[in-house]
Amino acid sequence: MLLPTLRQAVLEANLELVRRGLVLYTFGNVSGISRQEGLVAIKPSGVSYETMSAAEIVVTDLSGRVIEGNLRPSSDLATHLEIYNHFPDAGGVAHTHSEFATAWAQARRPIPCFGTTHADYFQGPVPVTADLTPAEIASEYEKNTGIAICHLFDRSARNYVPAALVAGHAPFCWGSTPADAAHNAVILESVARMACYTISIAPQAEPLARELRDKHFLRKHGRTAYYGQPKIPK
Amino acid sequence: MLLPTLRQAVLEANLELVRRGLVLYTFGNVSGISRQEGLVAIKPSGVSYETMSAAEIVVTDLSGRVIEGNLRPSSDLATHLEIYNHFPDAGGVAHTHSEFATAWAQARRPIPCFGTTHADYFQGPVPVTADLTPAEIASEYEKNTGIAICHLFDRSARNYVPAALVAGHAPFCWGSTPADAAHNAVILESVARMACYTISIAPQAEPLARELRDKHFLRKHGRTAYYGQPKIPK
Amino acid sequence: MLLPTLRQAVLEANLELVRRGLVLYTFGNVSGISRQEGLVAIKPSGVSYETMSAAEIVVTDLSGRVIEGNLRPSSDLATHLEIYNHFPDAGGVAHTHSEFATAWAQARRPIPCFGTTHADYFQGPVPVTADLTPAEIASEYEKNTGIAICHLFDRSARNYVPAALVAGHAPFCWGSTPADAAHNAVILESVARMACYTISIAPQAEPLARELRDKHFLRKHGRTAYYGQPKIPK
Amino acid sequence: MLLPTLRQAVLEANLELVRRGLVLYTFGNVSGISRQEGLVAIKPSGVSYETMSAAEIVVTDLSGRVIEGNLRPSSDLATHLEIYNHFPDAGGVAHTHSEFATAWAQARRPIPCFGTTHADYFQGPVPVTADLTPAEIASEYEKNTGIAICHLFDRSARNYVPAALVAGHAPFCWGSTPADAAHNAVILESVARMACYTISIAPQAEPLARELRDKHFLRKHGRTAYYGQPKIPK
Repeated sequence: MLLPTLRQAVLEANLELVRRGLVLYTFGNVSGISRQEGLVAIKPSGVSYETMSAAEIVVTDLSGRVIEGNLRPSSDLATHLEIYNHFPDAGGVAHTHSEFATAWAQARRPIPCFGTTHADYFQGPVPVTADLTPAEIASEYEKNTGIAICHLFDRSARNYVPAALVAGHAPFCWGSTPADAAHNAVILESVARMACYTISIAPQAEPLARELRDKHFLRKHGRTAYYGQPKIPK
Repeated sequence: MLLPTLRQAVLEANLELVRRGLVLYTFGNVSGISRQEGLVAIKPSGVSYETMSAAEIVVTDLSGRVIEGNLRPSSDLATHLEIYNHFPDAGGVAHTHSEFATAWAQARRPIPCFGTTHADYFQGPVPVTADLTPAEIASEYEKNTGIAICHLFDRSARNYVPAALVAGHAPFCWGSTPADAAHNAVILESVARMACYTISIAPQAEPLARELRDKHFLRKHGRTAYYGQPKIPK
Repeated sequence: MLLPTLRQAVLEANLELVRRGLVLYTFGNVSGISRQEGLVAIKPSGVSYETMSAAEIVVTDLSGRVIEGNLRPSSDLATHLEIYNHFPDAGGVAHTHSEFATAWAQARRPIPCFGTTHADYFQGPVPVTADLTPAEIASEYEKNTGIAICHLFDRSARNYVPAALVAGHAPFCWGSTPADAAHNAVILESVARMACYTISIAPQAEPLARELRDKHFLRKHGRTAYYGQPKIPK
Repeated sequence: MLLPTLRQAVLEANLELVRRGLVLYTFGNVSGISRQEGLVAIKPSGVSYETMSAAEIVVTDLSGRVIEGNLRPSSDLATHLEIYNHFPDAGGVAHTHSEFATAWAQARRPIPCFGTTHADYFQGPVPVTADLTPAEIASEYEKNTGIAICHLFDRSARNYVPAALVAGHAPFCWGSTPADAAHNAVILESVARMACYTISIAPQAEPLARELRDKHFLRKHGRTAYYGQPKIPK
């Protein structure tokens, strides 16, 4: 079996979405990539989480051709591949229809960075794509969805925001590993929920000041991080 | 015992509503139909889900007369029968008072198709009936409820929307089997919840473009579907 | 031990509030009355639900004097006694701070009868009391709370609405038994939640027509009821 | 091992936050203080609640220097220390990102005292800090957060409100013990949730009259309290 460790990581990241209440029935999918081997492992399409095994995770190449597996890959595979292509550091991608993040996507509003919880993970608003054109929907729809996502980041590459909302659809998140991508999907849903409550309490709420936003992001990420424990034990 | 397989399917579909948090106490009911035998199996009225057995599922004919069973059928039976009469492909009907779908019914607003989650199951807005007249309430109320539901679909038969909201009451869903009807009821509640959040975030939110709506619906349904696994294994 | 059956019923009704998620920590209380003996059994004040036993339920007379029990009765006892005094058919009273019903009480708005779920249990809006005066707060506060509740029903006795909201406080419900009172408290919370969602979806939502409201109420209650199973098995 | 009893109390108070659904992943932290020994015990930074043991709780002095423990203390330690310094009766501090309290903090609105549930624990609105200046963010950020909290109470010391919202961040609560601080954090989240629903139902809702607010607070706290059971059994 190809990529047993990656398959297992992809399986576990998919199950994390279930455990955290982010998926209904067979909704959602997480993938992982082996940059070295040029292979992607992804949840099969429409299969029950309850019985899913690592052996059922589908392995494809970077063009989406199935290399190993008896099941069809997630129908969103082409979107994942575009994200891997655009973000060389992405090791995992997670897609859910989690309800509050999806509501922002349906409302076609970026999620503002209203607080430090958001800033701890996303160094700015979570953007929303443009609507796809009828032509983009008619042909290579899933690939065009990925292109629309990546297009959001062409000019704002300095800030790390590993998530985007697809207009009228739902969020995609990514991270260094499949677990990290799923983790970001869980945080995004909590952040989306709090942002919805925030504008319900104060419709004109202002986003966090840039200084506080960057303080929190950099407290957890980057060279000067001091949240959590050092990677190498003292 | 008549129809043991159908009774069991009806029992399990009723329990699925409990498992997914759609019912409180004895609220809700699912039925199934045997078109060949002209019989319907339905939850008994006001009986606890905790102890319900397949033997307690009531079997009636298409006029609502009890053929087998010691308990009264659900008081909504006549509504189910109208739905079976109008939709020849319906094999199951599910009725709940799930809270968000019921809120839309109470608000007398159709649930707009705001996103692809909705479009994956319902090829257009979920409509809401007209109010019944005092005469329709006074006599054959439950049958008239079913007539009001079916009336919504007289002229929009081309789009598949296996659900309707009864004004001031709650949703009814249907499907190819009792399980499919219950599944649609679960999805409808999630879709209703997200639609409520969507208009909270953007009161003027626009429904999905027709092209994207049909793309998603046909990705999962019909001859060109490619979501999930093929029915016959390769 | 006095009234062992009633104590047990009161204990179980209190635990039902926990099971249905209506109480936090020691919030809430249910009582029951023996009209024949002129005694009331009520939850002790501020005691944990996890360890509560029937022996800890406090028995008082109708003036609130403890007849049996080592613990103080709920501080809301005097409110319960007023309700028993005013409604001769009440066999149980339940008080919670369940979050949506409490929000309506805090908003000082009656819960409109927006749908059939409401009408199945409450034959009209759930009313909210006037604010107590400083004098009513300063002396015999809990008794005055009960008087304010009962005052709401002086002139609308024909419709059965076994619940009221105390302005700025929370709901009180009653019923034929302690279990029935707790059941009404659970339904009230669901109805309050759906009413909150309803006005979020349609701020100008209209209450149910009187004919439909009475149809549903009388379908479940009174001489012509046909919901559920007959009391005497066929 | 220093302070085994306090460590255990701090561990248990941290786990109470998990049990009540107030924390996601490693969010949140509770500490406790030994005034006699001048030591504070606090959750380690970024460590999983699932496996946390009393031995992992970090002990520091009042300047924040680690006295015992192999792990880094919570990055919010300096905020806790300011609170202990300002409130001589505080024996525990709890910080969460619980979603509704955080939404009020993000909206920069104090939580009004809308009802008796609030007044039972907080004798007035829960205030929100001013925004920190860029200078306060750049240097000693966590300490300055604590100073901003304490500044809210300089002139309103007569009313007991053991909680504050940090603007754009989240709540901090305190109490006589770590358990009491965590308990206040749980109550605050429920109160924040009900306040959000209240203004959704009635945007112009008025806070509780002072007489009723003080009645409820003093019914549970202070010399004339009569809620719950007497501290010394009769």
